[in-house]
Parts: sequence; C-alpha cells; structure tokens
Amino acid sequence: MIRKYTYGKPFQTEAVVLQQKTESGALPYFQEIKEDGTLTLTYEMDPKDVVYGLGENVRGINKRGWIYESRCMDDPVHVETCHSLYASHNFFVLSGKETFGVFVDYAGIISFDIGYTHLNQLSMTPQESDMDIYIIEGESVLDIVRQFRELVGMSYIPPKWAFGYQQCRWSYMDEDEIREVVKNHRENHIPLDSVYLDIDYMERYKDFSINEETFPKFPEFVQEMKDQHVRLVPIIDAGVKIEEGYDTYEEGVKNNYFCKNADGTDFVAGVWPGRVHFPDMLNPKARDWFGKSYKFLLDQGIEGFWNDMNEPALFYSEENLNNVFAKLGDYQGRNLDNDIYNEFLGMIHGLPNNRDDYKLFFHNVNGKMVRHDKVHNLFGYNMTRAAGEAFEELEPDKRILMFSRSSYVGMHRYGGIWMGDNKAWWAHLLMNLKMQPSLNMMGILYTGADIGGFGDDTTEDLVMRWTQFALFSPLMRNHAAMGTRYQEAYSFDNTDTFRKIIEIRYALVPYIYSEYMKAAIKNDMYFKPLSFVYPEDEHAAQVEDQLMVGESLMCAPVYTQNATGRYVYLPEDMLMIKAKGTEDYICEKMTKGHHYVEVALDEMLLFVRPGHILPLVKPADSVEQLDTDNVKVIGYKNQAASYEMYDDNGFTRNYDLDKNITTIKVSADGDVEVEGAKTLKVTTELY
Amino acid sequence: MIRKYTYGKPFQTEAVVLQQKTESGALPYFQEIKEDGTLTLTYEMDPKDVVYGLGENVRGINKRGWIYESRCMDDPVHVETCHSLYASHNFFVLSGKETFGVFVDYAGIISFDIGYTHLNQLSMTPQESDMDIYIIEGESVLDIVRQFRELVGMSYIPPKWAFGYQQCRWSYMDEDEIREVVKNHRENHIPLDSVYLDIDYMERYKDFSINEETFPKFPEFVQEMKDQHVRLVPIIDAGVKIEEGYDTYEEGVKNNYFCKNADGTDFVAGVWPGRVHFPDMLNPKARDWFGKSYKFLLDQGIEGFWNDMNEPALFYSEENLNNVFAKLGDYQGRNLDNDIYNEFLGMIHGLPNNRDDYKLFFHNVNGKMVRHDKVHNLFGYNMTRAAGEAFEELEPDKRILMFSRSSYVGMHRYGGIWMGDNKAWWAHLLMNLKMQPSLNMMGILYTGADIGGFGDDTTEDLVMRWTQFALFSPLMRNHAAMGTRYQEAYSFDNTDTFRKIIEIRYALVPYIYSEYMKAAIKNDMYFKPLSFVYPEDEHAAQVEDQLMVGESLMCAPVYTQNATGRYVYLPEDMLMIKAKGTEDYICEKMTKGHHYVEVALDEMLLFVRPGHILPLVKPADSVEQLDTDNVKVIGYKNQAASYEMYDDNGFTRNYDLDKNITTIKVSADGDVEVEGAKTLKVTTELY
Repeated sequence: MIRKYTYGKPFQTEAVVLQQKTESGALPYFQEIKEDGTLTLTYEMDPKDVVYGLGENVRGINKRGWIYESRCMDDPVHVETCHSLYASHNFFVLSGKETFGVFVDYAGIISFDIGYTHLNQLSMTPQESDMDIYIIEGESVLDIVRQFRELVGMSYIPPKWAFGYQQCRWSYMDEDEIREVVKNHRENHIPLDSVYLDIDYMERYKDFSINEETFPKFPEFVQEMKDQHVRLVPIIDAGVKIEEGYDTYEEGVKNNYFCKNADGTDFVAGVWPGRVHFPDMLNPKARDWFGKSYKFLLDQGIEGFWNDMNEPALFYSEENLNNVFAKLGDYQGRNLDNDIYNEFLGMIHGLPNNRDDYKLFFHNVNGKMVRHDKVHNLFGYNMTRAAGEAFEELEPDKRILMFSRSSYVGMHRYGGIWMGDNKAWWAHLLMNLKMQPSLNMMGILYTGADIGGFGDDTTEDLVMRWTQFALFSPLMRNHAAMGTRYQEAYSFDNTDTFRKIIEIRYALVPYIYSEYMKAAIKNDMYFKPLSFVYPEDEHAAQVEDQLMVGESLMCAPVYTQNATGRYVYLPEDMLMIKAKGTEDYICEKMTKGHHYVEVALDEMLLFVRPGHILPLVKPADSVEQLDTDNVKVIGYKNQAASYEMYDDNGFTRNYDLDKNITTIKVSADGDVEVEGAKTLKVTTELY
Repeated sequence: MIRKYTYGKPFQTEAVVLQQKTESGALPYFQEIKEDGTLTLTYEMDPKDVVYGLGENVRGINKRGWIYESRCMDDPVHVETCHSLYASHNFFVLSGKETFGVFVDYAGIISFDIGYTHLNQLSMTPQESDMDIYIIEGESVLDIVRQFRELVGMSYIPPKWAFGYQQCRWSYMDEDEIREVVKNHRENHIPLDSVYLDIDYMERYKDFSINEETFPKFPEFVQEMKDQHVRLVPIIDAGVKIEEGYDTYEEGVKNNYFCKNADGTDFVAGVWPGRVHFPDMLNPKARDWFGKSYKFLLDQGIEGFWNDMNEPALFYSEENLNNVFAKLGDYQGRNLDNDIYNEFLGMIHGLPNNRDDYKLFFHNVNGKMVRHDKVHNLFGYNMTRAAGEAFEELEPDKRILMFSRSSYVGMHRYGGIWMGDNKAWWAHLLMNLKMQPSLNMMGILYTGADIGGFGDDTTEDLVMRWTQFALFSPLMRNHAAMGTRYQEAYSFDNTDTFRKIIEIRYALVPYIYSEYMKAAIKNDMYFKPLSFVYPEDEHAAQVEDQLMVGESLMCAPVYTQNATGRYVYLPEDMLMIKAKGTEDYICEKMTKGHHYVEVALDEMLLFVRPGHILPLVKPADSVEQLDTDNVKVIGYKNQAASYEMYDDNGFTRNYDLDKNITTIKVSADGDVEVEGAKTLKVTTELY
C-alpha cells in the first residue's frame, strides 16, 4: 500500500508515473520537528532495525551509522566519510520492528541522518519543506521495493551487446590507439563488445563534434569497429562550450536554451572546455533540442552514449573565479600563518562545485524561473531524459545504450548509471558490491563501477578480483583515468587469467540478460541482499559482502589484497562452483552456514541455489557471436528444477515476456524438457 | 646471522648500535640492475612468499601488492593508494621459500616495489646508491626480528602512567575547558591519565611558550591536574617562529642552529605560525640546544611531550610561495580550460610538502653542508633524539613520555610514535591494527593511532569499536581535529558503555605494562601477527584482522560498521572472553579453527592461549590508583600455567628484569604459587 503526503508546494520531478492522491492525515511513523523554519522528520529506530536503500552512497547495504545528503556531487575521492555522491536517490526501506518504505520526492537538497547523531534515531531534513513523501507498506522488504518500482515506472533496457565486456580509458586518443586496443583483445581472445570514447574524441571538448585530426573518417571507423563486433560509445558532457560559430552554442544562445543568471544573461561556468553554458535541462524545449543533438552521432553509426559531468559539475563559476582573482593579491607578502593560509587555500579549494555557485543560475520551467539549487538533483536525470526521449523518436525500433553519471529516481526509465569516478581501491571494490542492490532498489538496473578503479594506479590483483565480481554486473566496464597505469586485461603479466575470467562472463551472458530483462519487466531486482531472499534468516542481514544475482545464483567475491580465501555464509545448502575458467572449475555441494573457502587469485566463486539451475553457453569474442542455442545447465541431481530463460533479438524495443521465454525443465531423474519461444539444445551437469 | 653490505658512501644515520664490519662479497638474494645511474635491487618472489615489515605504511600486514616509498610525509588523507606516510622504516622480512630480513639503512628516499609492477617481483630503488644494507638470517621470522632489534638497540620505555587512557583534541583552548574534560571523566568514572595540549596552548604557535591569557598560571594548573592523577602533555612543533625578541628564535639565529639556504641565510618555510626556521636537527650542537629547550616545560611540572610536524611538514617554502604569487596574475581573464586550469590549481596544490622545497635547504653535519632531501628521513628521528638525549641529562631519574609523528629506525630508542593524522574511517581502524606489528618489528613499541579518527566526523559506534581494539595499544589516546565532532568518551549517548570498555583497559594495565616491558628489554614484539607465533599454521599468515598481544592473549576486534559479529580464526584451542566490562563477561573454551562469533556493539573479544594465564586487577580512575597487589587470573582448569609479571615503580630508568619479575604459577590442580619480587594476593577463575 502506498500513501502520499504532500508538504508545501513540491516541484514536480516527474519521478512518479502512477498518480496518487494526497492523504489528508499526518505522516505516519515520523515525528515532525520544526526549528528555525527547518522541518525535520524523525523516527526512533529499534537497535536491530536495518535500513536499506538510498541508492548511490558510501557505506553499507545497511545504511545505519552516517549522514547522507542528497546533493548530486562530483566527488572522485569518495572516502567513507563522504556525504554526497553523484546521485540523489531518496528511497529507503526500514526493516525490523516496523517495516516500511519511504520515498521523498524532492528536487532540492535533503539529508538523511540514519543513526549518526543518535545511534537509534533516523531523521530527514530537507532544505525547504516542499516535497511529496510516499509511505509504502507491504508483505516484505522486497514487496515494498516492487511497489515502489511500479510507482516510478519500468527500468531502462539497453541493447544486448551492452552486456558484453567493455573497455574505456580517458582517453584513447585516436583511431589507431583504439584499433590497437581491439586488436589486443581479439588476438588474446579476450572477449570485447565495446570501446569508449572519452572527452578527447571531441574537438576542444565540444559536445556533438568530432576531432577530425584524430578521427578523420569517423563513420567509416565506427563501421570498421562494428565489423569486428565492437561498438564505440562516445561521452557527452553537460556543459556547452562558449565559442562563436559553434552550432550547438549558437543555437542555445539564440533560443534561450541555456541556464540564466538572475539578470537574464546566460550563466557561465568552467568545465573541460573552459567557459561553458549549461543547457536548461528542465525546460522542455531545451531538453528536446539537446536530445535531438545526439542525432549528429547516431547518424554516424553510434549506438550508445554516456552522459557525464551532469551533476552538473563545475570547475568554477565565472563570477566566483573573478572574485577569487580579485582577492588573491591581498595575500601576497603577508605572513601566511595557519588562519590566513587556510583562508587563502579555502578560496581556491572552494572553486569547484561550490554550493553558492548553484544559487547563481536559473531554469526556465514553463515560463517560471527556478533557482538551480532548489532543483539541483534533477539536472543529470533530465539530461539523460532529453536523450532518452529523443532516441524514442529518432530510433523507435532500436535500443540505444545510455547511462549517466548523475541521476535521480525517474532517470532509471531512460538509462543506467555507472558509479562515478571511483578509485583503484580495494575498498571501492567492496563498495561497488554494496551499492548494486541499493541502486537496483531505485530501479537502476543497468549499473556497474569502473573495474580496476578510475583514479589512482591499480594493481594486477585488484583488477583481477574486481573483474571476477564485475562479471555479474550488467554494465561490465574497465575504465581508468589519464595519468594512471594502463589496466586493460592484456596489460599485466597474466593475460590468460583475464581471458578466462572474462570468458566466464560470456558463458553467463544468456543468464545475466535473462535475469536483467525479467527484473526490468517485472519491477524486480537483479542484485539482491541475501536478507531480501531469506528474510527469516537471522544472519542474512549481516552479510554485506555477498549478493544474490538473479534467481539462481549467489556471488561471494574476494575483495581483500593477498587473500587466498574468504568466509562465505550460505543461507541454505548450495552448490559451489569454484572456477578459473569456463572449462576449468570444480563443483561442490555445501551445507547451510558459515564456511571458509580457499579461493586462489585466479579463481572465483559462484553458488547455485537448490531448486534452481544455471544455464551457460560457450564463450565467444562478442555477445553477437555467442551460440545461445546450445546450453549447458548446472544443477542438482535428484531435484526437479526449471529455469525461465528470456531471450530476444537484443535490440528492438518490444519486450514481451510471454513471447520470449523458453522454459528449461530438469526433472528429478535428470531428464530435460524445453518449452516455449526457442528450440534449445540442452546438456546437463548435475551434482 | 647479520651481514652488512655497503654501497657508495652512506650518510651515517646512527640507526645501528652494534657495529658490523662490511662484507666484501656481493649482496645475497638480490640482483643488481643499473639503469641511467639508478640502482635497483630485485628479488623474484615465490607466489606464496609473505613480506612483513616496513613499519608505518598503508595496506596489509603482508606488504605485497604495492609500492611503498620511504619519504616522511604529512598525508592526513592517507587512503590505500598512498605511497608514503609520516615515517621511514626500511626493514622487512621475506618469509617463504627463502626467509631473510633486509634493513636498508639509508637517510634518503627509497622505494620498495613489492609485487606492484610484477606480482612476483620485489625491488628496491634508492634515490642515490649510498646505503648500508643488512641481510639477516635466522631460525624464524621472529628470530630475524629479534636480531634486527638487537642491532638497532633497546626500545624506549615510557612512564607507567602513559599506559592509562589519554584524551586529546585540537585543541582544548584553555584551563577551564581542560578542567571540564577531566571533570566529565571523573564524574562518569571513566578512567583517565592524561590530557593533551595541542598547538593552541602556545603563544602564537611558538615552541616553548605558554599562552598566558588562556593558561595564566600554568605550573599551578599542571599541579592541579596532577593532584587529580592527570598529566598534561604539550605538543612541540618542528618549526621555530620568526619573531624578533622570541628567545628560541634569537638563540637559533645567533648560533646558526637553523637549516640554511644554499647562500648561508636561514631557510624560511611556512607552518602554523606562518614563517619559521627549522632547527638543524642533524647538527649535534643545535640538537643539544633544542633538546635542552624542553626544560622550559619540564620546570613547570610537565612530564611528557609529543613532537609534531617533524617530517618536517611544510605548508610552503617562502621561495615557492613568492614564485606562485608572481605567476597567479597570469591566469586572470584567460579561458581556464582543463589544461590551463589544472596548471593553475597544480601550482597551489604544489605548495605544501613540495619535493623541490626539500632540496632548498641544508644541514650542517660536523661542518659539512648536506642538502636536506638526501637525509630527509632523519629529521623527525633527530628532533626526538634531541629531546631524548636532553631528558637523560635533565631528568636522569625519571622517565619522560615522548612520542613523535615522524620517525626513522633508531628513533625507537628515544620515543614512541602515534600513527599520524588518521581519519574517522572504519578502514583506518583496521589499518591501525595492521600497522601495530609492523611498527613493533622496527622496535617502535609505544604506539597507537588516534582513537575515533583525527580528521572527519566520527560516529559513536566507530569510537566504541576503536576503543575496544585500542585498549590493547600501549598508547591509548582519543584525539580529534578542529572542526570535527566531539568524541570524548562522554560525548555520546552511551557513556556507560565507554566507561566499561575503558575499565577493561585498566584491568589489563598490569598485563600490558608487563608485556611491554619484557618486549622492550628482550627485544621482543608486544603485538605479533599470528604467523609469528604459529609459523607452522598454514592459515595464520592469511589472518590480517587479529593480533597476538603479549604472550597470553589474542585480540580480534570488530572493525565493520553495524556488524554484530565477526569471523575469528583460532590457531589452537583457546579460551574466549566476551566482555562488556570487567564484571560483565562470559568465558567459553573454543576449538582450533574458524568460528563466527556474535559480538554486540558493547562487547569485545579476547582470547587466552592454553598454557597461559591472564592477570587482571580491579579498574581505577588512573594508573596510579590501581591496586596491583590483588590479582585475578583467568586460565584453564587442569592445566599448569605460569606468568612472569614485570612491575616496577613506573618512573625511574632502571629496568632490571630479574629484580622486577613476580611469577604466578597455577598448578593443574588450580593451586596458586607466587614467587619473586612482589607479594601478590591471587585469586583464580579457571575454565
């Protein structure tokens, strides 16, 4: 049951697709405290309550013990004391003595104090009390999540090739460098489905431009790659370079499509190209215009994009930069002691993503000027929506890959996300795992973190362990920043090990795709915390380093350097597969409970649930080349099980569940029966 | 067996106290590679080799998988990809197929690539090849460590009160604030032995001065605190403020005691007071003068100090600051695109601790000018040595508490360390644990990290879990930075829980002090990795979250937020004590192997080894008030065990092992016998 409560006059975020009437009574569960005009809603938690959700944030699957502030923010060094990441995901479920879900539909900045100030108190404080709050009750945490997902609409579905392995770097600078990357994969038989174009493919960081020196024959090059089953995926930035004669800039200025200063002039910020304007993503006309601009690249054969810097990230505002420069001279020649030096540094450190800068510019929402900070968290969402809505028009019969750095609930209908600029930290591998189910709760199913870490130099073992986990992620992309160590799968000593790990991904693609599609269509989660599947298991909620992956699997990656094993908790008897590769694995039946399992650096673990089977295919160089008609299923002897395998052509937009399901049934005797959409040849391997 | 090999003309660090003759042959184990004048020594590791040591550094007890650079460095945000921390500790033991220890006695910057570039290669690259390398072989890793410790001399011993609980903050600003801190501890019966004075007790950050406005009657105040069994511990900074009429400054200038520019003028850097000179800690006369300056505070009743900023940390050099200011204007009015903006920011970010600044100044070493960067890692060591040598003269019959932020091997004879400016991160609690045995290997026994984390806002549960671990640390100090949340033990909701945890520390003080003293006198380790005690146990080397604490105990703290339990590995059968407080605990005999143990937030675990007993006393408000004549021992039924308890008056400098040992023997029948120095009343609790 969903109930909606309205405070003040909320800005309409359009996150919700099922309209609800507003309740007249008081908000249940929470106490309202008003102090100095600020509203805080508090709830007294039981010490054993668990809080799930809040999407992209640091810390645990259980969010207790910190303050999270929804304020989309570019923080590439997000340590565990960081309050805001790239997204704003105001939905959580409190599970315990009382169990209920809360979605605060609010475009502005809001903080969630979940046991920080007081261990057992949860409180929510929006910047201004204009918001819709949805209280969701249900039979279980998962039921509450499903209701929420229905409320906010069906998740985005990417093309099937986007479930392949993807390689990125800031930046592969020209055609030849990309050819080399592809060649290295193909020659080593490391599967690969796409290569990314980071900011340097553009001419001086201008959106919807190609650097013709480094990519002289772009459409031909796109085709050349596609002939090798490799898609190129260019980046699009939020800021539009200020440059006379540059069409996107000129059109935006002419039509008032850019965000404005208070005096009606176009707001100027600094990003990659230096001085830019921000397209007014909340203005429907501007959104339409910006979305249609992707056509420039679609027309050259591009089938996927990633939207970046759309918090929006600011290196500086022109206004603040001028202020800072005006003051710098004052410090010259003085004795810069602690106080004065910190003041000086503070000015410089305050240039990027300054809170005050977000109060300088305005959106035109149906003729009404809205100050940006009041709707800050909707910018990235609406940039991606701009593209998504345009693609539906421009490419009605084709899925276009789209994911974004910044997001808000609702954006999940138009694209996925990557988890932003992470680091080559073991801590971020584990955080990657913990974030996945929280994001799935928001409806964001197409997700993944940069494998190996984006910033800082990585190590071979970290990339290896991360790849072993990330092969379960819908978005499986290796990405690294300029100046850091090269970390492609062939860049280290043990190329064969990487090949074998990534081949496991390709053997799993039919399962991963099938589970993804079912989760998207049925408003289900692809990655689940153990406690969502085993709510009666008292220990399950303690497990923050294993996940359920679709209906058949549990994963338990190694995320500690030099570890040659790990503890694993089995909420029921399971079949463990310890694999070095698709042809090199052992299976062992294990009992419910705690286990210590040896896992060498080149090995990984997956667990098949009883009553379930795991379908696998032979790996190939790309998703398109997979033979999905010949399936091996791994399962249990003397136990009937079946699997509903979803498959389709992988690129059109009709996602009919009934028409695309093939059911594989294995009887207790081990006999196989296949029913439904496809004719499959199935072999079994039962234990 | 220790062999010494000499490359070039090493600067004499005086780390070593047992003189060794130099071997004539080639360095064993390593291959020498010379490229462009740079010497690299490489060793091919077996995949299963473990590398222990390197003291204060990030990552695991097993150092494999990263590059560590010995370059004493102020890095308050030391994430796992940090290469250098506050210290330089060039000793490690490789354990595996071959087992040997390596100590590179080198004052300059050296990097240790332990499986970073290639997973199975270890390489060492000094900035210049002038160094002594000691190769140590022995019966075991622990034997190698003991030989090394004999080579570098006996560890520093603090007064006994320094084993009490200590409270710090940057800063308690005046007498009344400190009175309040003490009162809050005493009223809540939270034991407390000292309160720290951070930089604001000084007059304008001037060493050896007192702010007379905030501490108007300092000696009286010191005595007032001492009457409550609380010592005040002031900070001393490396830089001396440039200020006419300030005696320390005037004396230093007059006698040429400060580090020099190339032209012979005094080098100017910026630290807390703004412009400072650095005392030339490598000049014996300057060292003597600086050490004697502590008398100013000793004379006012002070009995302990902490030496800070002695890497030395630089906010800027005057020269570079002037250069930067001269260039800043060039950026005004330009289009600051990515390249230009990064250049601009790079200049500012390059101000603190700039590598080039360390090449600007010189030491006068017996008449010879030595450029600082070539002996960089000796600065903090010699600042602390200055104090330590002075204390021996000034207070020959009294131990003075002394610990330092920066250190080099050899400094362990003059003081302990704290682990520098850490963060309120769960990751740093675990790092704290891992660093302890590595530091003990270096001879640094008096160690501890800032409980709760220095930087960033902490949480109640983090402080609680951290206190539960830190109660085993010789230095047990809660400390937090300016602007962060208050985190004294009475600052949160559950004051009683904190009191009960800290009382456990006081019950353990006789054991901790006894084990510390025996470790110091016998060149043993107080904290050991499990594998040092159980070298035959194949799993022990994998355990990076438990430590052996002295001869009787193993600790296994919880270091994960919201965890209500943890996995524990027992290398043999042990007696588990799960404690909420000294009167509130359960004991359970557990078998060798892997266990999952429930540990509520207010509970902690300790494990007593078979054949050993754990002596405990009744807690008190301070160490001085402990009744150490009445001892309860916890041990095993039907198992003879004995414990050699070291005790002394706790403040004089004669550490006679024979005279100060009392042996407690518990027979298999449970009978108790006490022999030796003291008459103890012993009760037993056997399981």
